[in-house]
Amino acid sequence: MLVVMDTHAGEDQVNAVCDEIRNMGLTPHPMPGAQRTAIGITGNKGAVEASRIEQMIGVVRVIHVTAPYKLVSREFHEEDSAVHVGDVMFSKQNFTIIAGPCAVESAQQIDEVAAHLKAHGAHMLRGGAFKPRTSPYSFQGLGETGLKLMQETGKRHGLPVVTEAVDRESLQLVEKYGDMIQIGARNMQNFSLLRDAGRSRKPVLLKRGMSATLEELLMAAEYIVNEGNPNVVLCERGVRTFADHTRNTLDLSAIPFVQRTSHLPIIADPSHGTGRREKVIPLSCASVAVGADGIIVEVHPHPDQAMSDGPQSLFPDQFVELMRQISVIAGVVNRTLIQEPQPKAV
Amino acid sequence: MLVVMDTHAGEDQVNAVCDEIRNMGLTPHPMPGAQRTAIGITGNKGAVEASRIEQMIGVVRVIHVTAPYKLVSREFHEEDSAVHVGDVMFSKQNFTIIAGPCAVESAQQIDEVAAHLKAHGAHMLRGGAFKPRTSPYSFQGLGETGLKLMQETGKRHGLPVVTEAVDRESLQLVEKYGDMIQIGARNMQNFSLLRDAGRSRKPVLLKRGMSATLEELLMAAEYIVNEGNPNVVLCERGVRTFADHTRNTLDLSAIPFVQRTSHLPIIADPSHGTGRREKVIPLSCASVAVGADGIIVEVHPHPDQAMSDGPQSLFPDQFVELMRQISVIAGVVNRTLIQEPQPKAV
Amino acid sequence: MLVVMDTHAGEDQVNAVCDEIRNMGLTPHPMPGAQRTAIGITGNKGAVEASRIEQMIGVVRVIHVTAPYKLVSREFHEEDSAVHVGDVMFSKQNFTIIAGPCAVESAQQIDEVAAHLKAHGAHMLRGGAFKPRTSPYSFQGLGETGLKLMQETGKRHGLPVVTEAVDRESLQLVEKYGDMIQIGARNMQNFSLLRDAGRSRKPVLLKRGMSATLEELLMAAEYIVNEGNPNVVLCERGVRTFADHTRNTLDLSAIPFVQRTSHLPIIADPSHGTGRREKVIPLSCASVAVGADGIIVEVHPHPDQAMSDGPQSLFPDQFVELMRQISVIAGVVNRTLIQEPQPKAV
Amino acid sequence: MLVVMDTHAGEDQVNAVCDEIRNMGLTPHPMPGAQRTAIGITGNKGAVEASRIEQMIGVVRVIHVTAPYKLVSREFHEEDSAVHVGDVMFSKQNFTIIAGPCAVESAQQIDEVAAHLKAHGAHMLRGGAFKPRTSPYSFQGLGETGLKLMQETGKRHGLPVVTEAVDRESLQLVEKYGDMIQIGARNMQNFSLLRDAGRSRKPVLLKRGMSATLEELLMAAEYIVNEGNPNVVLCERGVRTFADHTRNTLDLSAIPFVQRTSHLPIIADPSHGTGRREKVIPLSCASVAVGADGIIVEVHPHPDQAMSDGPQSLFPDQFVELMRQISVIAGVVNRTLIQEPQPKAV
Repeated sequence: MLVVMDTHAGEDQVNAVCDEIRNMGLTPHPMPGAQRTAIGITGNKGAVEASRIEQMIGVVRVIHVTAPYKLVSREFHEEDSAVHVGDVMFSKQNFTIIAGPCAVESAQQIDEVAAHLKAHGAHMLRGGAFKPRTSPYSFQGLGETGLKLMQETGKRHGLPVVTEAVDRESLQLVEKYGDMIQIGARNMQNFSLLRDAGRSRKPVLLKRGMSATLEELLMAAEYIVNEGNPNVVLCERGVRTFADHTRNTLDLSAIPFVQRTSHLPIIADPSHGTGRREKVIPLSCASVAVGADGIIVEVHPHPDQAMSDGPQSLFPDQFVELMRQISVIAGVVNRTLIQEPQPKAV
Repeated sequence: MLVVMDTHAGEDQVNAVCDEIRNMGLTPHPMPGAQRTAIGITGNKGAVEASRIEQMIGVVRVIHVTAPYKLVSREFHEEDSAVHVGDVMFSKQNFTIIAGPCAVESAQQIDEVAAHLKAHGAHMLRGGAFKPRTSPYSFQGLGETGLKLMQETGKRHGLPVVTEAVDRESLQLVEKYGDMIQIGARNMQNFSLLRDAGRSRKPVLLKRGMSATLEELLMAAEYIVNEGNPNVVLCERGVRTFADHTRNTLDLSAIPFVQRTSHLPIIADPSHGTGRREKVIPLSCASVAVGADGIIVEVHPHPDQAMSDGPQSLFPDQFVELMRQISVIAGVVNRTLIQEPQPKAV
Repeated sequence: MLVVMDTHAGEDQVNAVCDEIRNMGLTPHPMPGAQRTAIGITGNKGAVEASRIEQMIGVVRVIHVTAPYKLVSREFHEEDSAVHVGDVMFSKQNFTIIAGPCAVESAQQIDEVAAHLKAHGAHMLRGGAFKPRTSPYSFQGLGETGLKLMQETGKRHGLPVVTEAVDRESLQLVEKYGDMIQIGARNMQNFSLLRDAGRSRKPVLLKRGMSATLEELLMAAEYIVNEGNPNVVLCERGVRTFADHTRNTLDLSAIPFVQRTSHLPIIADPSHGTGRREKVIPLSCASVAVGADGIIVEVHPHPDQAMSDGPQSLFPDQFVELMRQISVIAGVVNRTLIQEPQPKAV
Repeated sequence: MLVVMDTHAGEDQVNAVCDEIRNMGLTPHPMPGAQRTAIGITGNKGAVEASRIEQMIGVVRVIHVTAPYKLVSREFHEEDSAVHVGDVMFSKQNFTIIAGPCAVESAQQIDEVAAHLKAHGAHMLRGGAFKPRTSPYSFQGLGETGLKLMQETGKRHGLPVVTEAVDRESLQLVEKYGDMIQIGARNMQNFSLLRDAGRSRKPVLLKRGMSATLEELLMAAEYIVNEGNPNVVLCERGVRTFADHTRNTLDLSAIPFVQRTSHLPIIADPSHGTGRREKVIPLSCASVAVGADGIIVEVHPHPDQAMSDGPQSLFPDQFVELMRQISVIAGVVNRTLIQEPQPKAV
């Protein structure tokens, strides 16, 4: 950590900061310069809670050298983590495909699409029963009824189910009926929900917030892991920028960054990442090529009748084409699309 | 509403869209052009749920002409709404000042600052007991103990209290001990929490999310009002941009936009909006001048010992200077800083 | 085009707008609604210059349905355009690799790297002689001397040369010594320079500005083509967002968007797009997979001694690895890395 | 400056960096920590050109403590600079109002508006003769004819003229006919143009680029001052963000930041900053209150007939109201709107 003092900071202010650093059990290294003094800090094991120093008189800013996350950091856990959901594994060897409609709408809809997805190689089934919608007048999901439909359909077709929880009540239901808990972009910094997810035994799919830095994404994961649940898969789903040709801007550079920084798996969501059906296949291919550990895509049996997110949902035929294209690329980047039943290991 | 068809869309696709519009009880107005056909829609009373049409084959995009919010819109409620919190009123005639520390830390801290704030003209006391913190290792607030301290201190000094709720449990406590429920930026689209706040009898201070459009902010308010609570005050607190000289970019143009579009009061938060103490006074003055209905600012008796957000907290003396400057500007823009006890009216 | 009137606009204001539309030789279609009137416009061949209407009293906004670009639009020119630079072709069949240092520094540096690049499959040589640098105190490039070195080196190794022009004088020199004129991100809306490039006979590589929408990028290309130069290759090089883990955010969804909308080739620049060497290979692979027509990457014989942009320059060995990885992916997406000498066609 | 080493960097890599620092005539201060080593640097007079170190093996990043600008920095020039344009002064005591149409369209238009502006207290006249337009098909300005009209009109009404230059040729004409050279947002990093402006004897109005950090704005000013022209006035004109309720997001916090960091005057442009007429008055008031040294606003005699930017141009009556409101606020923030003829001083 480095403390940058004001150009007009006097010796007494520099000394006060050094004293405070010593009070924290650390060692200050003042470096007087031509214009200002900077003070290096050593002796810390992890990140230092810097707020005390940051607000001392004469301090311009505090520069963190050590990352504030620990449990999710590769510096504390060098090997890649694999996350298991039933017989499905998120790992550096696999490329895992989660697919399904934005929302469960009926028994027939979810069964029809699940049969198609399974037949063409998807590994897991997605589908929302609790939908966070911008408008209170939009379809909000089928709730518990939807979860039951998801559970039955997933079992029937051998597809583990991931579905979103939005509060404590829905989290308990998702734990009961689902195989993996999704925390959506809008709740990435809903810390109460993160803690609840951290106390669950089910694995968690954590989506990056719309304007979250990667440090904030990793800190959100840290909340979950810190409560005792190490099974977190991250998801890049696009961020909000000035660009108006897509709903969000899919930030694929997040994938290699997170993989260098953290041991957790990370997948991409080209459906929300672009918001337009015709861009989902090219961005899915790009996700494989950039090194993602999987994708989550929206597929609807009849996108033109979908109750939400139709414009970004693939037609069933497009999913077949998607699988064809990504399986070729996965092959050349040493990823397998075959998921083999295996004994769990954490 | 206007439906824009693809340049290659055939007549049958145009007809299908027109049929669907008629199915919705509305009237289609196809306008064939040199390059493409557009279809106008009339007959709607409010916003149309467009997703069905948006995902039909041949549709490029759907353009909304009518805003999707109703209850919070000025088009449905022409007169300005005033929101009362005890004897304090948020209105177009007043300029309301909420001040206090980022977090309640101790009985002495909150009492010391409250006495000072009251003596120099603040109208309400702020202070967090449940703090949403990026890191699980940072100070998370005193919880119910903090709320009790806030309540006692507020009563002692005649300052109604606003404090943040982050989930159902904390909301119930805030309702019990506080006078106004704050929904923070990170929870602006926590729709479960918005609904809970909408069922409360306490007024709500709703902060704009870090990357929320104003339409999204107003839709979040619509969730609250739609549940039966009309007493919502909005708050511009800065948005996330590439700019790195402030923690957030305070978007003061949001104030006149919201005031034209909605009847709800809106205040500014120059402390979070800038993240730096030395910019709080100039941006507070700008907030008065731009027409805001109030401000919320952080003041700490000893910012250099604050447990959170010290760098953006004003010193007690700076609050006195702030009051001096804004009272002069409020005077010339026809706002009073005097709050008079009055019979409640909703 | 659709004109949206204010909810309070009177009949006379609606009539005035209809009259103005008729004055422009177009046909107005007023659609009175519950809240407001909207007026559709038909009869236009291309985009309408809407400013006259936009500023009439009672007009809230004007919505463009037709894109404002013509010559670069796929609606006016359905087939893909190929751009030739010597024997190199940018097209939907090829994947073209431009590589070289950020700046030409010396005869030895550029020769050393060019020999290496040619030996491992690069098609064109890049290298700046006129460098737009944020600081006036940074290395600004070798100017004409640098261009001569580029020309000699390119000829010696059979690599056509692309290099940046920053004003009229440097453009004339680049035309003289180079094979393709680069217009950098900072000059994407330097319309004088665009016009000059449009009057040149040399093909142009046009980079997207740091905060340019794709409509603005295509309009910038329209400036060049409108002056008579149809040989424009576009380049996505990352945009500026709040994200701080990369220097820019590479927006790969721009590639399929531009390819649907325009007939011009488009390549990606993963070096500037990320700003970090270790992300260049994964993002290059993603660029091939997403369907780009090529990439431009920075390679330096000794990145740790580079006079500019060292941290994003590949080591020579990394370029070999890059070529290995992208050639495999190019193969499976039906792109060839082999460039065959061919008769020019425009 | 602080060099942050990789957690896996070996002792030899740390030593190599220290050697390089010594080669630069500076002193390294290695600080080994629990996780990694950081190396402080002292001995530099100004900013260090860090690229050599930044790209050494084992270096994660280099943190600059000293700002890279010198001549425009308050650290090198403590007192506020005043800039004189004829009898008009940009200073901390004045509040200077520049007004006029987006573009000069005719002798009558510019004369009519100038007479009105002078009568109601404007100090300078704006109006573009060379317009940078997104579309090649939009009105591009009257060129030299427009400049002559501006000059004559300015003299007739006693209003110094500021107008935009977009390349070397137009700069020479603006120098000939105008009183102040405007460099627009799109050219803020057109370094050739900045250098040309730096060699001029006329003062320069430099607008912040659409996605420029304040460091980049100050570096652009440094280019001008470094060529010998100290008379630079900066201008905040809004930045590009995701927010869609305004054309740009006016970043008023830039004003106090620049005033702390630099000695140059800075004004605001609420017309471009918002893009909507009805927000110009409130944001102008906010600009006075936040401490700006002036504003530049668009006023047109008939905004509904303007050839460009009509929707953001004030009606003549609105300018009178604007002056009324800002003069009241200027009074209470100790700024005078009276410009007195005075002997020039630089």
